[in-house]
Formats: sequence, structure tokens, C-alpha cells
Amino acid sequence: MAKVLIVVALGLAFATAVPAVAKAQTAEPDARIPGVSERALELGRDLDGDGDADEITIRLEVIEVTEEVYPGEYVKFWVFAPTGQGMTSVARAPSPTIRVEEGDRVRIILQNTHYFPHTIHLHGTIHPNNMDGVPDITQAAVMPGKEFVYEFTAKNPGTFFYHCHVQPDVHVLMGLVGMLIIEPNRPNNRFTHLVIGAGRMPDLSVSIEEEGYDSEYSLVYMDIDARLNRIPAAYSDPREIEKRMHREYDSTQRQPNIFLLNGRAFPFTLRDTPIEVKSGERVKLRILNAGARPMKLHIHGHHPTLTHLDGYALPNSARTTRDVFDIGAAQRIDLELRPGSDDFYASGPGVWIMHDHTEHTVTNKGISPGGDITVIVYAGFMGDDGLPKVATSLERFFDPEYYLGHIPVFDPAIFNTTREEYEYGWPEDAPVGGAFDYPVR
Amino acid sequence: MAKVLIVVALGLAFATAVPAVAKAQTAEPDARIPGVSERALELGRDLDGDGDADEITIRLEVIEVTEEVYPGEYVKFWVFAPTGQGMTSVARAPSPTIRVEEGDRVRIILQNTHYFPHTIHLHGTIHPNNMDGVPDITQAAVMPGKEFVYEFTAKNPGTFFYHCHVQPDVHVLMGLVGMLIIEPNRPNNRFTHLVIGAGRMPDLSVSIEEEGYDSEYSLVYMDIDARLNRIPAAYSDPREIEKRMHREYDSTQRQPNIFLLNGRAFPFTLRDTPIEVKSGERVKLRILNAGARPMKLHIHGHHPTLTHLDGYALPNSARTTRDVFDIGAAQRIDLELRPGSDDFYASGPGVWIMHDHTEHTVTNKGISPGGDITVIVYAGFMGDDGLPKVATSLERFFDPEYYLGHIPVFDPAIFNTTREEYEYGWPEDAPVGGAFDYPVR
Amino acid sequence: MAKVLIVVALGLAFATAVPAVAKAQTAEPDARIPGVSERALELGRDLDGDGDADEITIRLEVIEVTEEVYPGEYVKFWVFAPTGQGMTSVARAPSPTIRVEEGDRVRIILQNTHYFPHTIHLHGTIHPNNMDGVPDITQAAVMPGKEFVYEFTAKNPGTFFYHCHVQPDVHVLMGLVGMLIIEPNRPNNRFTHLVIGAGRMPDLSVSIEEEGYDSEYSLVYMDIDARLNRIPAAYSDPREIEKRMHREYDSTQRQPNIFLLNGRAFPFTLRDTPIEVKSGERVKLRILNAGARPMKLHIHGHHPTLTHLDGYALPNSARTTRDVFDIGAAQRIDLELRPGSDDFYASGPGVWIMHDHTEHTVTNKGISPGGDITVIVYAGFMGDDGLPKVATSLERFFDPEYYLGHIPVFDPAIFNTTREEYEYGWPEDAPVGGAFDYPVR
Repeated sequence: MAKVLIVVALGLAFATAVPAVAKAQTAEPDARIPGVSERALELGRDLDGDGDADEITIRLEVIEVTEEVYPGEYVKFWVFAPTGQGMTSVARAPSPTIRVEEGDRVRIILQNTHYFPHTIHLHGTIHPNNMDGVPDITQAAVMPGKEFVYEFTAKNPGTFFYHCHVQPDVHVLMGLVGMLIIEPNRPNNRFTHLVIGAGRMPDLSVSIEEEGYDSEYSLVYMDIDARLNRIPAAYSDPREIEKRMHREYDSTQRQPNIFLLNGRAFPFTLRDTPIEVKSGERVKLRILNAGARPMKLHIHGHHPTLTHLDGYALPNSARTTRDVFDIGAAQRIDLELRPGSDDFYASGPGVWIMHDHTEHTVTNKGISPGGDITVIVYAGFMGDDGLPKVATSLERFFDPEYYLGHIPVFDPAIFNTTREEYEYGWPEDAPVGGAFDYPVR
Repeated sequence: MAKVLIVVALGLAFATAVPAVAKAQTAEPDARIPGVSERALELGRDLDGDGDADEITIRLEVIEVTEEVYPGEYVKFWVFAPTGQGMTSVARAPSPTIRVEEGDRVRIILQNTHYFPHTIHLHGTIHPNNMDGVPDITQAAVMPGKEFVYEFTAKNPGTFFYHCHVQPDVHVLMGLVGMLIIEPNRPNNRFTHLVIGAGRMPDLSVSIEEEGYDSEYSLVYMDIDARLNRIPAAYSDPREIEKRMHREYDSTQRQPNIFLLNGRAFPFTLRDTPIEVKSGERVKLRILNAGARPMKLHIHGHHPTLTHLDGYALPNSARTTRDVFDIGAAQRIDLELRPGSDDFYASGPGVWIMHDHTEHTVTNKGISPGGDITVIVYAGFMGDDGLPKVATSLERFFDPEYYLGHIPVFDPAIFNTTREEYEYGWPEDAPVGGAFDYPVR
Repeated sequence: MAKVLIVVALGLAFATAVPAVAKAQTAEPDARIPGVSERALELGRDLDGDGDADEITIRLEVIEVTEEVYPGEYVKFWVFAPTGQGMTSVARAPSPTIRVEEGDRVRIILQNTHYFPHTIHLHGTIHPNNMDGVPDITQAAVMPGKEFVYEFTAKNPGTFFYHCHVQPDVHVLMGLVGMLIIEPNRPNNRFTHLVIGAGRMPDLSVSIEEEGYDSEYSLVYMDIDARLNRIPAAYSDPREIEKRMHREYDSTQRQPNIFLLNGRAFPFTLRDTPIEVKSGERVKLRILNAGARPMKLHIHGHHPTLTHLDGYALPNSARTTRDVFDIGAAQRIDLELRPGSDDFYASGPGVWIMHDHTEHTVTNKGISPGGDITVIVYAGFMGDDGLPKVATSLERFFDPEYYLGHIPVFDPAIFNTTREEYEYGWPEDAPVGGAFDYPVR
């Protein structure tokens, strides 16, 4: 008997309402959310008789959605979203994290509700060639108004990736990307199948609990060139958008200027994807680089262990523990994080940031701090406002004026002036050594 | 007694004529090709008396050659080419893959037929310091009209790299790059020593057969900034070319816009370097990143195993199996590909693409699909036209108009218009939110 | 009883005076240098009674310093420097390599003598959360004229990193970076604690000797966008500098154009950080990428073994030997270099270059050779002038005119002209195929 179930794990509006996640699995993890069609997720028969559904049908639409990624910055994305009900949708970037079980007969039905053709490439999973989603090569692209059924039996468990393969230099970077997790087959393995906005898993699969993990995170990183995303916001005719995005815009000269974790940049990341831990826990981080640049992910105060590359387990002999991890475009790594005070894997409680160490990626269009910074927050360090307790205040970073460059990044008092008087003090002399250029926002 | 032998394995004009490669070694793999001097390859004495020549002399010229890398795009390269006969040459980019045997006494004679100085750096091989090819440091650069003999005894088997070390930020990226393979020493180890255009090896060495491989590929990736390559095409005086390429052109601000596999971009890659496989085979991929950017090579439908880094074998304990591999500038990786339907290493027969996953690298100057995409083609999936059998048609990608941006990337019918009427439909209004720039081709 | 001790290991003015390093440890490695306060380094009690001081206090100022990084190129840096005496300072880029022992109670006192706020992040070390140096999150930034004490007990030995975490997309890349080494705890473990300019360690710790190493190098790589560093040189009002560097300059569009090893570019690298070796020795290279781009470090003629990632030892089963190593932003690798003629790890004596293989990084603002090239120099190959003995001459690379692009990179005689007549020969015709642009210095 099919059931219709979905949950929003971490959405912007819901962030502070997310409860501490109970470790024990609920009998019924998938829960219907408002605005989503009951056909978006259908659980079918229990084929192996082990107490959980093994026929999984997911219906995804393609939605154009505008989101505030950091204070004052609104970005247009294209995303896959669970089929909505009426005119409603839970669309957000990145596309939902999809979770299925090894052995499941999975059907992902792409309903192309967008004005451009699209497909889904099931990156890294085992699937028949005609389900590979490469336009022209393995299938015709799915035209506007049409649908296509991606059918495969889930094989090797791990962390995978799904994305549009039509004009990928544009479509991938517009947000048609999501994480796909295949869980090992276990009896009574019930977990939420669609996690909107990625982030903390609302429940753990049986095997992840068996492995001794206490919590699990889906972390999807993106890099955005805001100029590309602005094209469909600035123009309305699909032909003009096609011409500008696919034939004028030179992606080879692209330099991204916004860097996102689960669709948000700092400071919103702190609210939407904090890594909440307790000393002594073990935390599984599933990380996907859905952007087009090589990431160097640094975790302050901790040395996680690399356990999986692209969803495939590393032999123990090849596992490494370090503090800056390489994650290339489309790569996935799984990290084992061991919060605590053992002084090898972790330095003790507090609020520790985690970010790409490519310096300019921790800015918002060149203004620091920003980008994909989030925090590992120990128990007792999360404030009542849903933000970590910090040494001073994060208030000015929530002011859009800050990221417009209208506010001095340092307190004007250190220069013996005020914000109002700030720019009236210095002489307008020519620069010493003559005029010169630098890249300006 | 010296013999004069060469073969063109995969050349543009010969691509469809390449026969299915017989696994059994021929007694005489090196074959003379038209236009090449009989002195380009000389096999000398059998020093260890094991039935194959151990004195290898190779003569290379430096040739400026123009090639069509994708439909309509002609690029000027500088390459090392086997010394030609009369005015003829088999020059093409990349420079030929050179294969020798461990223990061979190798002499590579650089005959500088170009208007600029050059050298050869034998990257990664063991050789005396004065054979290292670094101008000024280990030798004087080889002047136009002069020659230099690089002599060394081949040591550790593996996948290496040779390239010019004069002004490498220009000369390497102009095409003076090739793969150098050292095969383990085996009795009666006869194989083709010079493979023009890299690609599929026309024969296997004894040890590669011993290891159970059925075929072997030399895959040389390059990234090109077409503006650099245009300088020697646009100007004729070597002094002006020197000034523009070496003193004006700022390579630190370089952003490549053409991405090549064995000198071709999609769709020509499909014709020139398809990876042809059968289920159950084992295929050795030798991969060289001869460009200047970090590659993230994704293989659809397959999970190869990384066996060698920079020609040196990984211990079994450190071998990894994944779907996106890092290959930095000048790095080489060897992959073991296991086509089939085992559902761990491979997903089954069909046509599977393989490409750098940095999204903009699968474009031709920003127009998708392009770049270094090639295909893994299973038996039965190669068409009579020398192209893989695909779901729809690749025809429009062979039209130069497509990569000039003159053809809508989608069928105009989805917008209820025709190609002719395409641009007359939309209003020329100002963009919503005001004017803005983006990188334009 | 506290002692006051410091040494300059490799400074520009002292380079040729650096003696061959004695392997045997001196009883008193730290030596006072002129211009440094006696309070810059204080060694306190021997807490574990094993014959060396375990209370280490280091005082660092923040200094703006201008240095000639290659002939004719003067760059303004901000660095941490041992507290000076009077108006003197030993400030240079990168900030000094700091060495402490496992178990040491370390106090690093940041005295902010600069006009902007700063902090110190002890990247990779185990330390309390409130010592993490992240402004606003773990502490208030240290205001001009103020100081802050970073206190921690050194834990896991290895190669670490310290840097400013205020506005890191600017401050890190301006030079507020240094290597931090934690040595294993051993009796009578006496070594120099502050090594100005990094480079060759003036003495070895007991454990490094135990491991059989003969010498040890601290190699700090940086990439610079000279346009950023020029801002504080061109303007004098801190408010204007704040506005231009932190709010106008778009670091996301940054493309560095100067590439440094221990604060110098080729040819100065040859003089300041040659790797001097003897056949049969074992050399420990500690390497830090303090820049913002992924490095691909190639060592000519040698195949080192990767022993540590980010200061943490690799299991033997995961150690790899290759010739091009990945070092991402903020990553550290330790390499074991084995000079000699074994034909596996090394090719024999001579002068072998070592450099990032990203081609444009071995230029100075696009003019080759330059960047982070240095040399591995075998005994007998170092000249009396403090430069390696080379095949021809390096003289023209010491002429600032060369890197200004005023001198043809090749001998004009090969074009049958002279330098004086060089540019009068070619016609000023339009380029074949029409005008086009390329990035110009």
C-alpha cells in the first residue's frame, strides 16, 4: 500500500523550530508537509519482507525559485522539488537530499515544469545506460511539459549525487543538484526519504546507528556566479534567456562570487546548518561539492577521519585524519567527526567554525566574513535565538548594508571617527606611485 | 642492425580505418608511415640478449601545426614530431606517445626546426642531471637549427611526461607535451615505440598482457587559451611573436577556454579517442594532465581503481576506487577499468561518457557540450560511421555554426518558433533591476 | 629563569653568511639577534625535568614591511614579527617559523602594533576554543595598540600553521602567515624556537635526529596579487585603506600574479632557500601552502615520499611516492627526500629545480622563469657566490629590466638582430584574422 510522506528537515522559516533529533527511529519517519502533493513520494511493496518498503517512487518538478542567501542578497535558482500541490512548492536550493535503501526499486519521475529541457544524471550510482541522463547520448532531453521515469535498483550504499546533465555548465550551477544517499539494506529500515534543504538528517538509518553514529549531516556546497543567476531574473523571454545563458555567457571565464552551504551563505548558514554535537558523540558528515571549483574544507579544532570517497568505502589502511580536506567538483567525501576532548580528534567544547580555506570563498562577493562558513556547536553553546553563543556579536552581519560595503568592517572608533564622519577625513590625493587598477565589486 | 619504424595509431584522417586491435603481439609492431624519415626511429642492438632491441634512438622536430580541434575551430600548436621526410610531417597535438622498455638505452634527439629555442624535460624519469632539460640551469636551450641529444637508461617502469622547459608557461601550453611510457623489461618485448596522437595503444607490451589487461590507452589532456595560440597565427615576425607571447601575454591572468583530450574536443573526441571495451575485459588507462589546471575526471557508469600515481605503483593498501579522480597539472594516474555488469566496478553495456567534471571544461569556449568529453563504448554500440550509437543524434554538434553560437541549443519548436524567427520575438526592454555585465564569449 | 633568545636563520642580508649546519645540537641554539627585544622569546621552567624549557613565551608584533621579492619588484607585506627593540625589527614575509615541543606550555602574545585589528588562529593545533582566534566567534579582534595572549599546551607533534583570522581573504594573503612546528617531547630537546624567514632549520630536534634525518626545511608558499598589496603602499589613511582593501577589492575575482617561496620569487629563491643536500642523506621537507590556490609541487630528479598530511602521520600503508604533490590552501605536507643515486628516489648529483607545476606560477607577473622555483643543490654544486653552479648563467634574471619585459627572453642574435635594433624590424601590419585581445601585463 503506497503512502504519501515528506518532511522538511531544515527550511529557512522552520530553522529555529527544528527540535533536537531523537536518536531512536520513529516508526513513521516520513511525514507529509503542506504544499507537497501526496504523489511526490510513494512507498510501495516490501519486496524482501524485512519490514520496510522497497518500492520508492519520487516525483520531482523543476522550479525557478528566488532565495535570500545572505542578508540582502536574493538569488534565482533552478531546483528539483517534490511535486507541489496546487500552486505551492517547497522548492529551495540545493535540491532535496534523497535517501533510499540498497535493493530498493527506485523510480524518480522527472516532471519538467520548466521552460527549458532537463534530465537527471544519477552520478556515481549503478544504473542502466539508458537511465544515465546524458542528453542525446543516452536519452532525449525531457522537454518542457514532459516527464521521464528514471528507474534503477539501488546497489552499493554510499553518498551519491544527482544533477541535470543538460547544458551542465549552466544547469548544474543554477541549482539542479542534490545529494542521493543509498543506505545499506537492514530490516525495518525506516527513514525520511526526502530531506528538503539537506542539513541534519531527521532520523538515522539502521546501519548508520549500527556503526555507532549519533547524528548525520548532508552538506551540499555550491559556488555561484551571481551574474549568471541574474540572467533569468532580468529577462522574461525564454528565447532571450537561452541565448544569453547558453550562447553568450562564457562559462570558461566564470569566477564565482557567492559560496553556499546547503543554499545559504554566512551568517544564514549558522542558523540553517549548524553542526550540533555533544562530547563523546560520533557524527557522520556526508559532503558533496556540487560546484565547479576545488574545495579545501577546514574544520577548526577537530581532525576528522576520511572514511569514504565518492560513496565507496576506503580500506582502513588508506584512511587519513587531517584538518583540510580536498573535495573536487562532483566529488563526495564522508567524514567521521568525533567531538570531545581527546586532544587528537577534537579540542574540546565550544563553537568551532568550518569552511573552505580558499580565502576568498569565505566572503560574500568579496566581503568577509561570508561564504560557506558554518559552525560546530557543542551542547550548551546554542543560544535561544537559534544562533551559537559567540564571543561578541554577529549582529552587524545580519544587516544587508554590511554586505553592500556601506559599513566599515572595523569599528570606526579605532580610527577616532564615527560611521557618519568616516569618509570625510582623508585627502583625495593621487595614489603614491601612480594610478592602478584592482578587481572591484 | 637499425630498423626504421613508426606507426600512426589514431590520426584524424585514419580514425575510422583503425582496426580492432589484435591482442596477440605481432612480431614487428613498428611500421613505417608515409612522410616520416627512416631516421625518426632507430632500433639498435639487443643488449641483454632477450630478443628485443635495447638501443632506441628517436629524432624529434619542433613543428608549428594548425588543427581543427572541434568543428570550425582551428588552433595553432607547437609540437614535437618524428623527423619528417622532405617537407612532410605527421605533426599533431599532443606530441607522440613514446614507449620504451626498462633498461633501454634511450637517445631522444631534439632537432630544433622551430624559430624559438626549446628543450625536452623528461618529467619523472630517472636521468642524469645534465639531461634534465632546464634551460640555463642544466643546459643551454637548443637554438633554432641546432640539436641536442637526450641520453638516459630507462629505469622504473611507469607513465611519465616529456615537455619543453623553455618558457614553460607558454611552450607547454602550446602543445610541446607528450606521454612517455617505460614498460617493464621482458623477453621478446616488441611494441610500437611512437604513437602519433596518443589514444589506443596499437599493441600491448608483454608485461601489460601478463597483468591481464586487454587494452591500454594513452590519454593526454590539455587546456588551451585560444588567445595565446592565436598570436603565432596572427603575426609573422618571430621577434613580434616573442614579445607578445613571452613579455606581453600575462599567463598569470590566463583562463583557458578550450579543453582537449588527445588534441581534440567533443565531438571529435568521440571519433578519435573512444574507449572501446567489452564486458569482462580489463582496460589500462594511462592519463596525463598536460594542462595547467586541476582536473576532476568523472567516468560515468564505472568505478575504476587507481593503481599508479605519477608512474609509481600504489601499494595495494592505498588503492582507491571512486568515480571522480584528481589529476593535477603534470600529474599522471593509471586507472584499472573493468567493464562489465558486476554492479560494483561497472554498470553494464552501453555508451558512457567520461569527462572533467569542472562544468565549464565540457564546453567549447563556453558552449556545451564540448571539451574533453569522450565515451566508453561497449561492443555492439559503435556505429558504422565510427561514432557511437546514441539515443538521438549528434549531428548538430558537427556544424560549426553550433559552436559559433548561431544555433539555439534547444529545438526552437519548444518555444513555438523556428530558427529563422527565433530572435524576432522578444521585446528589447531594459533588464529588470538594471543593466549588468557578465563574461561574454 | 627565563632567557631571551632568537636567531635569524635565513635573512636576505645574511643569506650567504649562513654556515653549513652542524648536525650535532648546540647546547644553546637560540641566539639573540640585533634589533629584537629580549622579551620576544622567553624560555621558562623545565616542567618535566628532562633538561629543556617547557614554558615558552613568544611576543609578536604586526609590522608593515616592504621587500624586494624579485629583482626590481617591491611588495608591501603585513607580517607577525618578534617584538623589536626600539625602532628596529626583523620583520619579513612570511612570519617566522615557530618551533615548540610537545607538552610545552606555550604563550604567544600578540601585540597589535598595526592600524587594523588582528588575531592569531592556531590552525590545526589542539587548543581551547577561546584560543581559536576567530573574531567575533571566539574572541573580540585585537584592536590597534592592544594585546592578546594565546595560551595552549602543545599536543600532537607535527607541522601546523598560524595566521590572522580577521578579514582573512586580505590579511592571510598580505603575509600574516607562518609555520608552527610541534616537536615530539624528548630529553634535552634544545632547538631554535623562532626561525625568521623559514628555510633551513638551524638545528634539528632530538626526535628528527632519531628518525635519521640529516636536515630539515620549513617551506612556506604564498601567492600574491600585487594589486592588493599595492593599496597600503599607495594610500596613507587607514580609513581609505580599509575601504579599498575590505570593501572595494573583490577577492572573489582575484588572480594572483606573484608566487613566493619563503617570501621570495626566483631568482632570489635560489639564494635564500636552496635545498642543500648530500648523497645518502635524508631530508625532511615541511611544506605549507599559505596561499589561496591549489599547488602541484614538482621535484625534478627525485621522488619523495609523503609522510604526513596536515601534521598528522600517514600510516605506512597509505604513504605514497611520486613526483608532483597536491598541497591545497592551508594544507601542510611533510616529505621525506632521499638524495643520492639509488635510481628510485633520486637520480644522482647536480642542481635540480623544484616548483609548482601550474605553469603560470613559475613566472613573475607572467614573465618566465620566476615564481616559486628553487633548487636542490648537491654538495659540490654550490658556487662561491651563494648561487648554484649552472650550465650557462643566471645573470640576466638578476636584472630588473628582464622582469619589466624590456629584454627579449631569447638572445636577439638568433633573430639576426641586436637588442637595440630589436623592435625596428617588423611591420606594423594588422594581425591576420583581425584584431583580438589577450591578457596583458
